[in-house]
Amino acid sequence: MQDYKNQDTGLRKVYLDNAATSFPKPESVYSAVDQFMRNCGGNAGRSGHYAAIAAQRMIDDTRLLCARLFNTPSPKNIVFTHNATTAINFALKGILSINDHVITGSFEHNSVTRPLHYLASNGINVTKISSDLNNGLDKEQLKNAIRPNTKLVICNHVSNVFGTENDIYEIGRICRECGVLFMVDAAQSAGVKPINVQAMCIDLLAFSGHKSLFGLQGTGGLYVASGVQIRPLLEGGTGGGMVGGVNSSELLNQPTELPDSLESGTLNAHGIAGLAAGLRFIFETGIDKITAKEAEFVECLIDGLQEIKGIIVIAPAKGFSRGSVVSFQHETILPEQFAAILDAGFGIAVRGGLHCAADPHKIIGTINSGGTVRISPNYFNSETEIDYCLRAVKEIAK
Amino acid sequence: MQDYKNQDTGLRKVYLDNAATSFPKPESVYSAVDQFMRNCGGNAGRSGHYAAIAAQRMIDDTRLLCARLFNTPSPKNIVFTHNATTAINFALKGILSINDHVITGSFEHNSVTRPLHYLASNGINVTKISSDLNNGLDKEQLKNAIRPNTKLVICNHVSNVFGTENDIYEIGRICRECGVLFMVDAAQSAGVKPINVQAMCIDLLAFSGHKSLFGLQGTGGLYVASGVQIRPLLEGGTGGGMVGGVNSSELLNQPTELPDSLESGTLNAHGIAGLAAGLRFIFETGIDKITAKEAEFVECLIDGLQEIKGIIVIAPAKGFSRGSVVSFQHETILPEQFAAILDAGFGIAVRGGLHCAADPHKIIGTINSGGTVRISPNYFNSETEIDYCLRAVKEIAK
Repeated sequence: MQDYKNQDTGLRKVYLDNAATSFPKPESVYSAVDQFMRNCGGNAGRSGHYAAIAAQRMIDDTRLLCARLFNTPSPKNIVFTHNATTAINFALKGILSINDHVITGSFEHNSVTRPLHYLASNGINVTKISSDLNNGLDKEQLKNAIRPNTKLVICNHVSNVFGTENDIYEIGRICRECGVLFMVDAAQSAGVKPINVQAMCIDLLAFSGHKSLFGLQGTGGLYVASGVQIRPLLEGGTGGGMVGGVNSSELLNQPTELPDSLESGTLNAHGIAGLAAGLRFIFETGIDKITAKEAEFVECLIDGLQEIKGIIVIAPAKGFSRGSVVSFQHETILPEQFAAILDAGFGIAVRGGLHCAADPHKIIGTINSGGTVRISPNYFNSETEIDYCLRAVKEIAK
Repeated sequence: MQDYKNQDTGLRKVYLDNAATSFPKPESVYSAVDQFMRNCGGNAGRSGHYAAIAAQRMIDDTRLLCARLFNTPSPKNIVFTHNATTAINFALKGILSINDHVITGSFEHNSVTRPLHYLASNGINVTKISSDLNNGLDKEQLKNAIRPNTKLVICNHVSNVFGTENDIYEIGRICRECGVLFMVDAAQSAGVKPINVQAMCIDLLAFSGHKSLFGLQGTGGLYVASGVQIRPLLEGGTGGGMVGGVNSSELLNQPTELPDSLESGTLNAHGIAGLAAGLRFIFETGIDKITAKEAEFVECLIDGLQEIKGIIVIAPAKGFSRGSVVSFQHETILPEQFAAILDAGFGIAVRGGLHCAADPHKIIGTINSGGTVRISPNYFNSETEIDYCLRAVKEIAK
């Protein structure tokens, strides 16, 4: 990356694409990864020596931190995966069987719509119900859509395109009452919106480690409520340990206990070391403080963009819950081009396009005009950067 | 990890468990990861801005380095995965269909035996053929086992338990002649044994990134020969880009082109940045030099262990190809206990037990005596460390 000094803000670059991956991370994340790389580096669960045990302890600690953040009954309910997409695939394909019915919203990411599209071609019944910009998933439609063979409802917590927040408490309550499993894609919310899987009646929660949890890329996970059975999608080595008096390495069947059943092969311990530091940063800072700061940036961006001639903001109205994502279009400049000008002309990193989620654009009508420009601030941005971004948009728009 | 200073060698710790994961890594790996964390950190393929493009370029470069190491026709034949286990699952489950026949050896890791065991219960015919300590997989048996419905032969390059090296050239030749796909599990060989997928007639190669390629944990990959069709096991977002005049984000079907078809969700870019530096280290050092150094350590260990009373070495005889793994047993002390004493008493990290691979122990007869103690040196070990390890084994054995 070129060393770029912006004349206007004095800043080198302005990163506002945190919905794709957060940058920068807290300094403690960098040092935790460096420390693990240089001083530990064993393979967790694969041996009993100092380096393997240190790696195992670090992973166990991270599981505990996740359990604390999401209020899971036990750290064993947390499975680490390559990314949120893998977690979603593990759950959908490990739970749904032929003739099962699954319900989803209309503001989902391809990480949900593509596996469901595959499953729909393979004997699973999929119902997509409406979502709207302010209220998210339509809860009345949801109630009416539930059938005797409905196994699962899956929706995101926060839309990665428009920032619309679903009413997770209410959806969870409906699912629990109807005896249907409830799965939440928390890729855009984990770390910035409080999540309590027990109070929210969430049975499955997929999360990304490298977004608002500040871990490295290649980390993510799945919360699985106790008693929910998932057929593993991958089998392989899961380390030693005794199962019923037998060394588990000896068994040809995949272990059935969580988290081993869903953690085949070596985990991304280096990335998880960073995730642990990211989680600690969240606890030390306080999630309320993070939420408030990001909400302020979002409000400031929406208000500022709405005043710019030629800019059409597409966001939940004031008063409705929303995440740290602001989407807009310009009357004539296509979103990808607009984002490219922000990058090349102003050193501002935002994303233009469909954001790996075509469905919400189809609903809102932005699909044929190239999607949106998406600004996604996080805790490490500053007011100066937000102001600078607004001025840059204004300059391009005229 | 405690700071441990050994009185005898002056070394803090002696790490000899490189078959589980390599430690340390080259200094350039640490700095590449640190550099990516601090100065780049975008999400590859997810935007067009400076940080995303820098991440994409780094991943593309790493693909090129892998392609060069394995002599693949194109970097697009390389798919990055969470680990070698995921790569093996992707290939086996994405290629084999009901009534297909697959042939494997008897020295395989659970990353191969467990998915095959699952597939065997789901309509796939699996034949395990004999392997022996010196020659590996029996090539005559292999020829006789091939049937009209045989789709694939899968075996490791080097056994992670005994270091036995399979004759990949010859097995590849047999498979090609019979029109059968050939898949190699190179978890223990990639980076330390020369691999040429074209000359060796390898159609699929699974590799680990964090062992002899010196990348971080959470990295691995799959080489897929051009023309080999793999049904994706996971679907999800694969970034933007145009496919047939349509933004690929818009498509509900998973892309069919490699590597996108098998790379759903955000890749472990931080780990891949380390892998790139590890691969560059291998090219700069020369794989022959690495191979020679490790072979010398292995020879020294086998010779030294064979002279110790009470120690039974289980390794391919001199003159046979072998990897950087030396397994042994003690007459009375169980392997896990022996490894624990090496750790606690001497600060030496080795692995005791079955090493996530029961089959080879069943063949060799070490299954009921708790497996073996496995010493796995790599390029960063020293003669002093090998000598110290031998003296420690001698002391424990008496």
